[in-house]
Amino acid sequence: MYPNKLYLVAGGDSRYIHLANLLAERGTVCAIGFDSGSEFSEHVERLHSLSQLKDAPDVLVLPMPVTNNGLTLNAPLTREKLMLTHLLDLCHKHSLVLGGKADERVLLACAERELDFADYLEREEFAVLNAVPTAEGALQIVLTELPVALSGQRVLITGYGKVARLCHRVFAGAGAQVTVAARSCRDLAWAEAYGAHCLPLSCMERMLPKYRVILNTVPARLFGERELSMLDSDTLLIDLASAPGGIDYAAAEELGLRAIQALSLPGKTAPVTAAAIIDKTIGNILAERGPRV
Amino acid sequence: MYPNKLYLVAGGDSRYIHLANLLAERGTVCAIGFDSGSEFSEHVERLHSLSQLKDAPDVLVLPMPVTNNGLTLNAPLTREKLMLTHLLDLCHKHSLVLGGKADERVLLACAERELDFADYLEREEFAVLNAVPTAEGALQIVLTELPVALSGQRVLITGYGKVARLCHRVFAGAGAQVTVAARSCRDLAWAEAYGAHCLPLSCMERMLPKYRVILNTVPARLFGERELSMLDSDTLLIDLASAPGGIDYAAAEELGLRAIQALSLPGKTAPVTAAAIIDKTIGNILAERGPRV
Amino acid sequence: MYPNKLYLVAGGDSRYIHLANLLAERGTVCAIGFDSGSEFSEHVERLHSLSQLKDAPDVLVLPMPVTNNGLTLNAPLTREKLMLTHLLDLCHKHSLVLGGKADERVLLACAERELDFADYLEREEFAVLNAVPTAEGALQIVLTELPVALSGQRVLITGYGKVARLCHRVFAGAGAQVTVAARSCRDLAWAEAYGAHCLPLSCMERMLPKYRVILNTVPARLFGERELSMLDSDTLLIDLASAPGGIDYAAAEELGLRAIQALSLPGKTAPVTAAAIIDKTIGNILAERGPRV
Amino acid sequence: MYPNKLYLVAGGDSRYIHLANLLAERGTVCAIGFDSGSEFSEHVERLHSLSQLKDAPDVLVLPMPVTNNGLTLNAPLTREKLMLTHLLDLCHKHSLVLGGKADERVLLACAERELDFADYLEREEFAVLNAVPTAEGALQIVLTELPVALSGQRVLITGYGKVARLCHRVFAGAGAQVTVAARSCRDLAWAEAYGAHCLPLSCMERMLPKYRVILNTVPARLFGERELSMLDSDTLLIDLASAPGGIDYAAAEELGLRAIQALSLPGKTAPVTAAAIIDKTIGNILAERGPRV
Repeated sequence: MYPNKLYLVAGGDSRYIHLANLLAERGTVCAIGFDSGSEFSEHVERLHSLSQLKDAPDVLVLPMPVTNNGLTLNAPLTREKLMLTHLLDLCHKHSLVLGGKADERVLLACAERELDFADYLEREEFAVLNAVPTAEGALQIVLTELPVALSGQRVLITGYGKVARLCHRVFAGAGAQVTVAARSCRDLAWAEAYGAHCLPLSCMERMLPKYRVILNTVPARLFGERELSMLDSDTLLIDLASAPGGIDYAAAEELGLRAIQALSLPGKTAPVTAAAIIDKTIGNILAERGPRV
Repeated sequence: MYPNKLYLVAGGDSRYIHLANLLAERGTVCAIGFDSGSEFSEHVERLHSLSQLKDAPDVLVLPMPVTNNGLTLNAPLTREKLMLTHLLDLCHKHSLVLGGKADERVLLACAERELDFADYLEREEFAVLNAVPTAEGALQIVLTELPVALSGQRVLITGYGKVARLCHRVFAGAGAQVTVAARSCRDLAWAEAYGAHCLPLSCMERMLPKYRVILNTVPARLFGERELSMLDSDTLLIDLASAPGGIDYAAAEELGLRAIQALSLPGKTAPVTAAAIIDKTIGNILAERGPRV
Repeated sequence: MYPNKLYLVAGGDSRYIHLANLLAERGTVCAIGFDSGSEFSEHVERLHSLSQLKDAPDVLVLPMPVTNNGLTLNAPLTREKLMLTHLLDLCHKHSLVLGGKADERVLLACAERELDFADYLEREEFAVLNAVPTAEGALQIVLTELPVALSGQRVLITGYGKVARLCHRVFAGAGAQVTVAARSCRDLAWAEAYGAHCLPLSCMERMLPKYRVILNTVPARLFGERELSMLDSDTLLIDLASAPGGIDYAAAEELGLRAIQALSLPGKTAPVTAAAIIDKTIGNILAERGPRV
Repeated sequence: MYPNKLYLVAGGDSRYIHLANLLAERGTVCAIGFDSGSEFSEHVERLHSLSQLKDAPDVLVLPMPVTNNGLTLNAPLTREKLMLTHLLDLCHKHSLVLGGKADERVLLACAERELDFADYLEREEFAVLNAVPTAEGALQIVLTELPVALSGQRVLITGYGKVARLCHRVFAGAGAQVTVAARSCRDLAWAEAYGAHCLPLSCMERMLPKYRVILNTVPARLFGERELSMLDSDTLLIDLASAPGGIDYAAAEELGLRAIQALSLPGKTAPVTAAAIIDKTIGNILAERGPRV
């Protein structure tokens, strides 16, 4: 797939160093946006400036998010500023531009240059595969925080999307008694089929005192002051929903509850796997586009 | 939900006897279409003719399929013929009509009478919950047919829809080494996340000699003469895809392969659970409709 | 191990045909005690009489039990009578004699001839490995007999020896809620460590109405009339303890309970695996004896 | 069991505070050897000196190890020195003395006073139940240390005793591919029955490059320079065997391998569970002794 092609990895955190190393098995790889001291393999050429690039890249790999301000690249590992437009201007007309969480300005800049853009973050396989290290990261936090063995403890998971399903798998695998609280008949049916105790969200409140650990995956304020005040003081809450999450943290603190907002776990607890998932998703995107001129 | 309502269960196989018994916990239940000897609980009134019905039913429960010929009810447990239109004519304008796999004629007959109709077979929770006894039925067949212990055996599952996912769960739970072959990146990602070995469908052929058991869930001819001829002669094939299934049975027989078409497993191997799933789905439909006049 | 050695497989049921085929990968194999129509591989020489044997066997493989009357070989697949002493007289002084459940007479007959005898049935690995097909056989019976899906059902296992532990594994793997009732602190600790609900045997009685399936592995009358009368009429009892088992079958019948005595499951439901386990155990015995003259 | 009895908890680390709190559900509890600031419940009376004790204790609970020098109590949470003999001299003739890892001097001191002594550390249920938090502690370390997701990784466990079996359970539950290397046929059979890939210890060496994580539970130098030099540089080694463990740490460091000696995990990662296990074991000991005068 895309053999003998030139990949340019531009910006991103340490995951993108691993990613560049992995992409080197697909073609020639250059990287920009990483100051010295990085752990690139010998097969990746680290550039100090864009002028070092000899050819237009066939595939330009941008980070997630692509940019925080719409102008410069999200490149936390360099002190230099890289203009997004400069990078796009390097591309030829058949170049493929890949990025994560691209906003309108990125899409527009690509469109203006008639460049083909794909967002790897919007691919379902990306989200599914990322749910595995996310669930493992949640497990790591719980094992670290709990002063008791997890085995046999009652764990409540709210929601039954990708992250919740994988949390169900790893927590049950580690011996916890998992209950799933969800709104839809469909989600409750899936949770039941996979062996969880099930609880319609509308009945959750009165059961709250029973749980030792709560994993929230629903991006809505499910745990306000009222719900939190129902909890046993030993309950550990982990919020896996994207910011602002589903817990009233001020109320939790006032009640003396331990509530942890766990964001971007794959990048933090399993950066090499996080890179491999981006690599795999890029491979799928390339395979679907087929051979290009 | 729907308390003090009158349910009329009309026709269907033995599952509908269990269903009538379960519905008796929701309201008053009459049943028609079942000759003597049936195992109704004391809370269900079995009718010999429609004229015995004192009131119009609030909920009319029809079987799946509702009818095989568009005219008479699918009622294998009675020798009498029940006209679908006679049943519908008993309803009042707020009656809810429930049935499974209703064809155009059923829908039209309800529409003509301005009756609210819902197909419980089209609900996702119905299909998800049914996948559990289906997978268990497949496990039962495999345990019965295999002259070796399943533990440690390589099992290939094709597809990764509902039935495939639950087969993955119960076969892996019983100790088998499960590989999933699927076409889409999404399905492969789910299978990998749940711990299966994964195989793009396009690469399946050359791996076929490795498997001791194959569970097909894809309703397409994946196992033609060519694929079958790749298999070890000891391989056991179970076809869980809806008819006509995915196996060339004639070729399988010629090659001396054991291929079993396993249809409608929940009704056969776990009729009480099959009834409970219909009951639960009906409960969900009623809850969503809310209180009615 | 024992390469170029001569194995004589004498008697036994169909498992011993599979065993002879497996032993053919270790050395030269002859078999006696099997009438025509058997499924020996081309690498096994089936003998019609002992006089056909050209050399003294290095390893004489006898069935389990070796004999039912102390005189003639247990050989259900032939109509001829084979005298145990005739077989032993064929051996040379370094021959190894292997058998299962050998009684005093067998041991004495070997001792008189100064033959080295080993009972493969007394090896712990034999019992452990056999527990896997035993547990799968129990699962097969339960899946066949239950009119409901096993997933989510409460299953009680009595005892926590080898068979019970593997039953725990496969039934929990298939989604059942497993409770273990045992007498010793040690067994209860193991069951708890492996995630079961635990119940001291002394507290079992009052909990009996809760279980849908009971798997008894304790060879003592745990289920007399009193205990049986506590059970729900739908309870399914499987007795895996060696005869006479742990259930008062007369009382069970009177109470209308379904109680199934399931003996010798590996040989019945997974004969090929049962043969492989004997083969593996024989390999271990040979390895421990080391090379012989 | 032992109601209305007086328990004296003397010394030990923070687990013994939790233990005292738990014992308060069995009888009256006093504690000595804990300076202020400890988290005793209101049902435990913390003593400042032995003279505060009004009655002779019926049960004297000593820590593990009971003493480090044979004279003074192992009491890390107080600055005072408590003489073991002073504690024993408080007992009456029917007192039961409980301790962990008691050496000859402790046993002798009890014998001289004709006091009944029991070592809770020598009970099998204690070791089995402790294996659960030990395995969870190992999982926590691995999740923290690995830069990749654990799911799908190859994990080698050496030995198949209590800790190894529970490591197998939780690591496989978390999605790892577990291989067990053991010496005895029996251990290999158990590992195979529970679904592990199995490896005789004698064949381990050449397979070593395959594993991402190695959990050693064998208290013998299995991983010397030679074995360590076979490993991939990314391999993570966790040594769960009691000191000095099974790894040549100097060689590991020289080879740049990450090797972690993880001792006394239950007390460190799950102190509340560790206390509950001591409490449960004490309960079993008391139950077996029966009612006392």
